[in-house]
Amino acid sequence: MSNIKPSLAKGTRDFSPQEMVKRNFIFDTVKTVFKKYGYAEIQTPSMENLSTLTGKYGDEGDKLIFKILNSGDYLAKVKPDLLTNANSNAILPSISEKALRYDLTVPFARYVVMHQNDISLPFKRFQVQPVWRADRPQKGRYREFYQCDVDVVGSDSLLNEAEFILIYQEALTGLGLKNFTIKINNRKILSGIAEVVGKPELIIDMTVAIDKLDKIGLDGVVKELLERGFTDADIERLKPVILLQGSNTEKLESLKKVLSASAAGLKGIEEIETVFDYVNSMLKAEPAIKPDVELDITLARGLNYYTGCIFEVKTNEVAMGSIGGGGRYDDLTGMFGLKGLTGVGVSFGADRIYDVLQELNLFPESTVAGTKVLISNFDKEAEEYALPVLQQLRSANIAAELYPSSAKLKKQMSYADDKHIPYVMLIGSDEMESGMLTLKDMQSGQQQKLTAESIVELLKKD
Amino acid sequence: MSNIKPSLAKGTRDFSPQEMVKRNFIFDTVKTVFKKYGYAEIQTPSMENLSTLTGKYGDEGDKLIFKILNSGDYLAKVKPDLLTNANSNAILPSISEKALRYDLTVPFARYVVMHQNDISLPFKRFQVQPVWRADRPQKGRYREFYQCDVDVVGSDSLLNEAEFILIYQEALTGLGLKNFTIKINNRKILSGIAEVVGKPELIIDMTVAIDKLDKIGLDGVVKELLERGFTDADIERLKPVILLQGSNTEKLESLKKVLSASAAGLKGIEEIETVFDYVNSMLKAEPAIKPDVELDITLARGLNYYTGCIFEVKTNEVAMGSIGGGGRYDDLTGMFGLKGLTGVGVSFGADRIYDVLQELNLFPESTVAGTKVLISNFDKEAEEYALPVLQQLRSANIAAELYPSSAKLKKQMSYADDKHIPYVMLIGSDEMESGMLTLKDMQSGQQQKLTAESIVELLKKD
Repeated sequence: MSNIKPSLAKGTRDFSPQEMVKRNFIFDTVKTVFKKYGYAEIQTPSMENLSTLTGKYGDEGDKLIFKILNSGDYLAKVKPDLLTNANSNAILPSISEKALRYDLTVPFARYVVMHQNDISLPFKRFQVQPVWRADRPQKGRYREFYQCDVDVVGSDSLLNEAEFILIYQEALTGLGLKNFTIKINNRKILSGIAEVVGKPELIIDMTVAIDKLDKIGLDGVVKELLERGFTDADIERLKPVILLQGSNTEKLESLKKVLSASAAGLKGIEEIETVFDYVNSMLKAEPAIKPDVELDITLARGLNYYTGCIFEVKTNEVAMGSIGGGGRYDDLTGMFGLKGLTGVGVSFGADRIYDVLQELNLFPESTVAGTKVLISNFDKEAEEYALPVLQQLRSANIAAELYPSSAKLKKQMSYADDKHIPYVMLIGSDEMESGMLTLKDMQSGQQQKLTAESIVELLKKD
Repeated sequence: MSNIKPSLAKGTRDFSPQEMVKRNFIFDTVKTVFKKYGYAEIQTPSMENLSTLTGKYGDEGDKLIFKILNSGDYLAKVKPDLLTNANSNAILPSISEKALRYDLTVPFARYVVMHQNDISLPFKRFQVQPVWRADRPQKGRYREFYQCDVDVVGSDSLLNEAEFILIYQEALTGLGLKNFTIKINNRKILSGIAEVVGKPELIIDMTVAIDKLDKIGLDGVVKELLERGFTDADIERLKPVILLQGSNTEKLESLKKVLSASAAGLKGIEEIETVFDYVNSMLKAEPAIKPDVELDITLARGLNYYTGCIFEVKTNEVAMGSIGGGGRYDDLTGMFGLKGLTGVGVSFGADRIYDVLQELNLFPESTVAGTKVLISNFDKEAEEYALPVLQQLRSANIAAELYPSSAKLKKQMSYADDKHIPYVMLIGSDEMESGMLTLKDMQSGQQQKLTAESIVELLKKD
């Protein structure tokens, strides 16, 4: 046995009891909302065949996939000349057949294709599982982190898009966030813009550039557009679009004029309008709920991928990148040979949301509560007296502990403190004689004498 | 993009919505009990440094650890002559620094050592996470499976052992099991037996042999004991112990006589008696609960490891190996240089418990319930009418869906059937005119006409 000082693998984290309770608060909240909207949970394995993952995330992505070494004499199958050349890439397929999940979307597509005869469409699923990326770790970026994805395949109804807006609204409000913006755009609007400027082939260059408006300002965007092949004349036509201002309705009206010559562009506008109509109709039942939805035509995340609506969520309470996003992709399962299945989905950035809630001090008190009451342990006799009381508490579903040895009281009290246990029950000779047990409220320091039954009643309500 | 027929990595599984609900029923049930007994959840990363895991599970175990290939040009650091020899073992440390978690115990030990300044002892933790083993897959044995571990470190009180008996009792009963046996033994009793037979050095051989009593019978055990170095005279002294019969009290009385010359043996008996006393005292509060605990001195699982009590749980309702087990280990963290920290813990075999509950049809009805009501979608007008109703249901925390397109009613009904949705709400022109919506109970086929408000009230209670 080695006897080295242990450490964590780079970019990975342990989660303490306090952190787990907070993380579970986030996961439980989003899962509850997903279920309310008719989504059901699935899980896929942590490891997939390397062939399932390779080629789905671009060359850069492929490099970041964690590969698993074949078991046993993994070099036995490698051709000797490959070994001599020490060519890592060439040898890889011979020594690794499996890899760790890189995201939840590709495994979901594989799931849908493999189980197409067992699932009924539309298939509404959510998935909350870790993914792994061999990225260089930095603040807020880990090699193992959770994704919370919610997607539907097999339905082209824009009701789904509208429901994702409400899902974001309800889940983030449920987590305690008060001021956040759900940004929406549509790939078809971006196509329309590139079309009317007369450079449909430059759509990617255009969106990459205008996506940076926030960071580099208009001058920066113009410079980049020029570098990427747009002319001054093109830019004059783009400017009003880039600088689009006003309410969503005003923006849509302006766009209708600009894009009047583009069928795709008008279709994109119509889709956005339909989504807004759905949201408004649904919220007739809940007039107090007013999601802050903003049409943002500079939003272009994952454009290669999305074909319809695109979403991104930002909190306005702290400086933080997006805390969620997603969109529609018309051919999710095509990569595995099942064509024509449309999908739309969004995801929640659990780690960033954690940091936001922590910074805003939004984790509810109850998320620190584990054990409700610790029974002190003075000596053998008191311990014997305490044992049935301990079980009486538990049979009333009160999380309870008896300190497992008759240590110094100070030590027992500091155990309760460290564990944030809100009550300590003190059982000494007085208490055993009278049957009136001392219950100490650890926050206020107040003590009262009560029967075991009364304590059970009191803590059940608390 | 490849266009191959996708498949799962060998020995791994997808979990469908129906399976997830059942799996979560198991995990939620055991977690609720763990918390009630004062245990708090932690999680550790899926990947650990290879050095953290190597040498902890024996040579066979080391082979079954999934190693992760270093990223980038992983062969760059390998000495050329090693490559030419194609020696997999010699090259391994140069190309792999990380590996997947093999169990939850070693990562827990690492956690305790790394966080020793932040945790207060006794530290009571549970952990429910997948582990990975490069085992040959077979029925019931997977390469990725969940462990549910609950352990305490830093307390030598036998109250912990007693509480694990109650945890098993409560969790397994909560899962619906009615007839199971919690077997208990003590390493010190086994040491005592080897000692009084005069072969203390053969304790491992002895326990390996008598552990097989169930499978190979007395004759088989005798044969194996002879092969492993015991004499006929030894075996005559061992026989009454191997064949120990009667109640736990009777067994303990017999053992006291047999082991009267062994201090270790008597200590083991005393420990078992103390555990039984704790259980009895606690259960004074819950006289209806009568766990079936059986002293079984042939129980020896993981003997190299355990130093005190040993547990194993078997269901008596179906043929199945153990569904749980554990024990005390006096030096959990010694492998990472932190000496003298005692630990005791048990684990639940979630996959086996799943199979048992499935076979006995014990999963509760509620574990199939996802969406409570599907609203039909006849046409645009009905959809528009349905949207606020949909949201009215959700704001009352009723999981609801509107079928996202005006497909044929038959298709919508079969969607509800496939998803086990118990109610369908039909909204046609009659319903829109009268405001009395049709609610169909999918199980009984009965329909009734009700206002939206009444339906919300009805489904809230259901």
